[in-house]
Parts: sequence; C-alpha cells; structure tokens
Amino acid sequence: MRIVDIIIKKRDKGELTTEEIQHFISAYTRDEVKDYQASAWAMAVLLNGMTTRETTDLTLAMVNSGDKLDLSGVVEIAVDKHSSGGVGDKTSLVVLPAVAACGLPIGKMSWRGLVFSGGTLVKMESIPGFRADLSTQEFLEQLRDVGMVLTGQTGDLAPADGKLYALRDVTGTVPSLPLIASSIMSKKIAAGAQRIVLDVKTGVGTFMHTLEEARTLAETMVGIARNTGRRACALLADMNQPLGCAVGNALEVREAIDTLHDKGPEDFREHALEVAAHMLVLGEKANSEEEGREMAKEAIENGSAWEKFRQLVIAQGGDVSYVDEPEKLPKARIIETVPAP
Amino acid sequence: MRIVDIIIKKRDKGELTTEEIQHFISAYTRDEVKDYQASAWAMAVLLNGMTTRETTDLTLAMVNSGDKLDLSGVVEIAVDKHSSGGVGDKTSLVVLPAVAACGLPIGKMSWRGLVFSGGTLVKMESIPGFRADLSTQEFLEQLRDVGMVLTGQTGDLAPADGKLYALRDVTGTVPSLPLIASSIMSKKIAAGAQRIVLDVKTGVGTFMHTLEEARTLAETMVGIARNTGRRACALLADMNQPLGCAVGNALEVREAIDTLHDKGPEDFREHALEVAAHMLVLGEKANSEEEGREMAKEAIENGSAWEKFRQLVIAQGGDVSYVDEPEKLPKARIIETVPAP
Repeated sequence: MRIVDIIIKKRDKGELTTEEIQHFISAYTRDEVKDYQASAWAMAVLLNGMTTRETTDLTLAMVNSGDKLDLSGVVEIAVDKHSSGGVGDKTSLVVLPAVAACGLPIGKMSWRGLVFSGGTLVKMESIPGFRADLSTQEFLEQLRDVGMVLTGQTGDLAPADGKLYALRDVTGTVPSLPLIASSIMSKKIAAGAQRIVLDVKTGVGTFMHTLEEARTLAETMVGIARNTGRRACALLADMNQPLGCAVGNALEVREAIDTLHDKGPEDFREHALEVAAHMLVLGEKANSEEEGREMAKEAIENGSAWEKFRQLVIAQGGDVSYVDEPEKLPKARIIETVPAP
Repeated sequence: MRIVDIIIKKRDKGELTTEEIQHFISAYTRDEVKDYQASAWAMAVLLNGMTTRETTDLTLAMVNSGDKLDLSGVVEIAVDKHSSGGVGDKTSLVVLPAVAACGLPIGKMSWRGLVFSGGTLVKMESIPGFRADLSTQEFLEQLRDVGMVLTGQTGDLAPADGKLYALRDVTGTVPSLPLIASSIMSKKIAAGAQRIVLDVKTGVGTFMHTLEEARTLAETMVGIARNTGRRACALLADMNQPLGCAVGNALEVREAIDTLHDKGPEDFREHALEVAAHMLVLGEKANSEEEGREMAKEAIENGSAWEKFRQLVIAQGGDVSYVDEPEKLPKARIIETVPAP
C-alpha cells in the first residue's frame, strides 16, 4: 500500500478503506508518512470530504496511535464534556464542580493551544501554584479521591492527532469538518470517555460560523460516538456574543467564581446549568434533563459546587487564597470599559 | 503576507495576485515556505485550478527563481521544442539533427527523471562516453560551433520548479494542468527559448489521457508563451500506441538512427517531419509548414541530418563507432518478440 496512492485516492474523491486510513495514520505516527504528504492529504480531505465511516475510522486510528486511558476501575461511568470554545468560554470551570458535587466524578483533560482564546488550563494557571501537568497516576488517584480533575493530557494520548493538528495549523487545513470531528473525538476516547456532552458553539467567535455548520459538526461527532460504542449528546450554543461579560484568563476565572457563588451573569449561568444537566443524565445521576438541572442548581445554591472547586484548586497545588479572595488574581495593567454601542 | 493565508486563499477558490505568487515561490526557493506548506498549496491548486494569468505568473516566478540563459549572442532566434513524452518517444533524436542540418541551431536541455519512460538524455547515455553534463560555457560554445547540443540543464535554471516537481511526485499533485504547464514553460524560458514547438502527446502512455485534456494543456502553454512575449505552437499527437516500434533506451536510439538513415518506421518518421517543419517555420528558415517539411525530408535523405547527429555524439565525447555500428549498443539479456494480438 503506497502512501501516495492513498493521497491520490482522496484527491480523486474516492472513499478510503479502513485499512488505508489505519495504515496512513499509523505510518504518520512513526514519521514514515512525511509532513508534506500528510498536509497534501489533509487538503484533499478538506476539499473532498469524508463519509461518517471514514471519519470514524480516522478517529479510531488516531486513538490507536498512542496510549489509552482506562477509567473503568475508578469511576462507574466515565462522562466527559467537550466545548468547541469561542471567546469568553469558561463553562467547564462551573459545570465540572457542579456535577462533581452531585456525585458524578469528572476527570477532564484539556489540550493546550488549540484555540486562539486560550484553553481552560491557561485560565486555571492564573491561580499561583496550580499544576496542570499531572501524571497518569496522579490523575487516577485524584479522580478517585477528590472526584474532580482538570489537567493537561497525561501519557501519550492520540499522538497522531497532536502531530496532525500542529500541521493543519500551518497549512490552511484547520476548518475541515471530518478533521475537526475526529480530532475532538479521538482525544476524548483516548482519555477514556464513555459518554460525552458536546457543547458546540456557533457564531463569529468560533470555527463554525453558521448554525448549519455547527449542527453538521455535532451530528458527525454524535455519529462517531455511536459507531464506536460510546454515547454522546450535543448542545448548539450561540457565540455571536461572548458568553458572560469577562474575556481574559484571570477575569474569566473571577466570573466563574462569581457564578459558583450564584452571582454570575444570567446567560452564562443558564448555559452552564444546561450542560451540567446533560452530563448528569448521561452519567445516570439524573433521570431527566429537568432533574439534572435542579440538581446542578441546588449544588450551586447550597455551596457544594464551590466547595468542590476549592478542593480541586487545593488538590492540584493552587493557592486557595486567590480563589477565596479573587481580587488577588492578576489584573491587566490598563483597564478600559468598552460599553456596547 | 503570511504563507498560510496564500494557501487558504487558493483553498477557498480565490485568484492569487501576482505579488502573492511571486512571494510564495521566492520564499519556497529560499526554503522559507516549508515542503508541507507547498504540498498543501499544490493540492489546492490541483483541485481548485488557476487562471491563465495565475499560471503565467507562476511560470515567471519559477523562471526568476534561478539563472536565466541568454542565447541572443549565439543564435539569431532561439527555438526549442518540448515533448510531453510518452512511451517510445525519441522524436528529439531525429528532429534536432534534421533542423540543425537545415541551418537552425538547436541547444536543447533535458531534465532528468520527470517521466517513467526515461528522458532523451538517458537514451543518449546508452552510447559509451556520451556526456550529458555540459557546463554553461560548453553548452554555448558547442551551440555556436556545432549548431546542436543535447544535455542536462546547466547552471541553476528554474530551481523552484525542480523543488516543486520532486515534491509533487510524492504528494499526489502531479496531474494539475497549471502546475504541468508552468513547469514545462518555466524550464524552456529559463533556458533562453524565444519560440517553442510543443509536441503534446495524448493517450494511455501519457499524463493527458484524453484529447480534450491535451488540447487544454497545449492552449494553456501557448497562452503562457504569448503572455510572456514568446511564441509557441502546439501539435497534438496520439500516443495510444507507442511511436515507432522500439521501447527501451538503446533500442530507441537504434530506431532513431534507422530513421536518420531514412529506414525507420513510417509513423515515427511522419511525426518527426511534422515537428521539424514547425520548428523551421518558427525559426524563420522556412516560409510554410510544407516548405519546412520538404527541407527536413531532404536533410534526412541527403545524409546531412545523420552527419549532424554524428557530430553531436563526437562533440559530447560519445564513441561514434556505437552509432555507426548500432549493433554494438547494449542489448537486453532476454529478448522476446510480442506480436500484436
């Protein structure tokens, strides 16, 4: 099987076989497919597309390119969430403590630098001392003991995806639906997720500029989950306006803290409750979205979600005084208020 | 001007500006555009196409990436020919001596390894001692003194094309009309050609599988010549059957020698006379194709074309006894006759 023939087949709008996709990705992981071949192939995929079957095979090939985390000895049902990002998105910082407080343990790994707006980890690292580089052992122990983890990836999870993503970034091949969907799902599956809530943003602050594109991405990812024996559900959320008021790492942590104290912006709180509700349903802690929503709301109102957030900060070495007194968090040197026109 | 933005523009079916194309190719020549970016761009060009204006700009950018040969002090009108190759194509070995014998000096550079069927140089190198690695100085002197040269490229002509061609070969981006046309024309223009006869083959033994594709390629190249102040004419020739009977380097040299002795296969002789006629017209040695054809025919019949071929072999160090007694040329160890069904 020649690599160039696999590129040519996709260039000529052919459907790649499972074997062809596995061979291409495993050879790419071993550096036997050169970057210049992978980028030409990625451009052909971007312009000619992939079927859901091909996208599923690509996802699994990337999962199989490295380590796979097995959470079955640590949690009953491994639930995860993915947010497609966007400006001002700090949903995880509220959702994760809320569901963890409801008895659903959550170990979330974030990948760095995938989005211009900074990932969840970068926001948390504005808290002095906070470590986002846990080992696999530390990850599993904290998940079992604290019920909540928020860290960078441990081990060598989906290395093919890491390589391909870095390449796509400099070759104009980022906005391909099958490449985006397989990238997201391969990381979640490699990190051990069995059930996944997909929080897909649409609008100017995101990769998916229209609701239609966001819907197609969501459907593709739910299809991949189904085809690989996982379960996923997707929410489509409008990001034509930033979520909440705060944009910027430390400012967003402060806004998340406010929300955990039940004092945050209403739009952001609503969105966080909706995501949390779906996670609790998928994790079989709630029987319905309504019930899940009430549980998450209660966890915020009774302070248990906030307490879980503090435990997380302490467990990962962060100075908890900075979240207890968030005015200590770093501030920009110049602060200017820009009123909406 | 960011390289990735140029890739994205072509990916999104945009028309690249002259400045964008120049910047991309000159940065690629300096290794500032990475191979993985050039291959993604080439795939986008292959799938989304280029206008004639873009293709002309690409040709000139590749010409300007290296040395340019100036033949104006050596010949009155610099005429060249290009053959798009195909199985069994040894046209140059007959055409060039014929037109040189008619008083039109021809210095032809061939590029190695571009076609699976072996180039003209490889065929000539079956003659012991024949040197196809002349320096620029040797090229110019022999063109002036002998009136005929057949060598590999001298100097650093169109290096961007050389880099890009090697990359296309391993990334599935060869059969792109604008990339093929600009590759051919950039080499001819860099080598000093003012007028060019394009001998475009179509059929199973070639890159252009249909007459329509071959016609479009021919029109694109004639357009590039016009847009850059050169003149070109194109012949479309059927290669669904190999030209002549011989296929293989030494065998093809023998068939060319037979043809120069006016004893070759009729189809090959006809094709060679037609190409020669057009070269003589473009070189202003003949007033019409008919006149050019008669001149070339006469040069073969009176032995002057054969004499020119011998001079070429001697001038470039080849052992002339091998062309005088072609049975001395290397033979395959196993010879099998395969009759047409």
